[in-house]
Amino acid sequence: MPPAPLLSTIGFDADDTLWQNEQFFQLTERRFTALLADHAAPEHLSQRLLEAEKRNLRLYGFGVKGFTLSMIETAIEVTEGRAPSAVIAEILAAGREMLEHPVETLPGARETLETLAGRYRIVLVTKGDLFDQERKLAASGLGELFDAVEIVSDKTAATYERVFTRHGDGPARAMMIGNSLKSDVVPVLRAGGWGVHVPHDLTWALEHHDEPVNEPRYRKIAALAEVIDLVETIS
Amino acid sequence: MPPAPLLSTIGFDADDTLWQNEQFFQLTERRFTALLADHAAPEHLSQRLLEAEKRNLRLYGFGVKGFTLSMIETAIEVTEGRAPSAVIAEILAAGREMLEHPVETLPGARETLETLAGRYRIVLVTKGDLFDQERKLAASGLGELFDAVEIVSDKTAATYERVFTRHGDGPARAMMIGNSLKSDVVPVLRAGGWGVHVPHDLTWALEHHDEPVNEPRYRKIAALAEVIDLVETIS
Repeated sequence: MPPAPLLSTIGFDADDTLWQNEQFFQLTERRFTALLADHAAPEHLSQRLLEAEKRNLRLYGFGVKGFTLSMIETAIEVTEGRAPSAVIAEILAAGREMLEHPVETLPGARETLETLAGRYRIVLVTKGDLFDQERKLAASGLGELFDAVEIVSDKTAATYERVFTRHGDGPARAMMIGNSLKSDVVPVLRAGGWGVHVPHDLTWALEHHDEPVNEPRYRKIAALAEVIDLVETIS
Repeated sequence: MPPAPLLSTIGFDADDTLWQNEQFFQLTERRFTALLADHAAPEHLSQRLLEAEKRNLRLYGFGVKGFTLSMIETAIEVTEGRAPSAVIAEILAAGREMLEHPVETLPGARETLETLAGRYRIVLVTKGDLFDQERKLAASGLGELFDAVEIVSDKTAATYERVFTRHGDGPARAMMIGNSLKSDVVPVLRAGGWGVHVPHDLTWALEHHDEPVNEPRYRKIAALAEVIDLVETIS
């Protein structure tokens, strides 16, 4: 019997790995700072919003609804309770629009998944709002290419241990690919898998992390399609 | 070989089946109507809030964050844009408190699960906000009693088909127990399983449904612990 291949399962992050996401948050944040331009400078508003998001993370988790609630909270704070209802209504509308925006897949997403499907078990591992992530997956048209979909509330080493044990042969024979060093790469390395970073121009401030350059199973690629050649080198 | 037992897998709903939930929504709604008492009668406010929840369901899904956003939207609507910031801030605070409230398990929940665990595969099937449901499950102390946990965005016949195929032997050998006829009972009957209704005093208006009295696999019990005897009659 030939030895089992080293790599059996490949996990993909979704937001800003397979489709655009952060750009919608940043566009909405610009709309938010414009709405409150009479009350504070954009940088100050962004700073206060980020503080609210951080503070609320343990209650709201990740996603558009929590972001909308944090924008409303910040609007009230920075205006010292004088935010007009019209501004709050605009923020609500901006949040609803984010939840309806069309999904724009990133270059190479479909081709990469199609090439790897059948040769590896392909798992989508995405964090955030269950309802919104399911909507985006359906709208992306990529759903059929995955052997499994895991929408999780956070991405830790324990998350990858669980997901790759459930859907594969454990993290040691798994690879995770994503744009966030903090969520997609570092925890899977800690769990014993390969962690592949595909940087995106826009990455949320709370997802920043130092590059794990000394980790033997860390890889960095410039574009998603490069993963096709990369897996050949370790299979 | 003896014939395989008829029933192998039991699914439990969580909110208002294993622990209190709707009472927190109703308490918060009363706080909401009190906040806006100068602007409209409580019944009118509740009606408008329900309309907003219905309208937003396709965007927000189920859960506290969507409920909070719908309360804010309703406050702005009923005041024709004159809702003071202080009211909006109070609604935000009420939403955050819901996300922190201690979990109160319902009578018989732990004992029932402990009795059935090991004899059947026990699956938690709950819909709503991923992050909040995970928090409540952890806080309930019941997590260890489940063979699997499925937090889903909606509960349809297809949901139960998928969940009971993944974690059991398909819906034909599965039972689902819950307080909502619409979400816990009727769709699992449609999928071919047993559907057991445990009514709760409080059930959300959008979860109401006629009793499926002519369905042979429909059962109704007055208290959760009755399921222990019930399963004996069909195993």
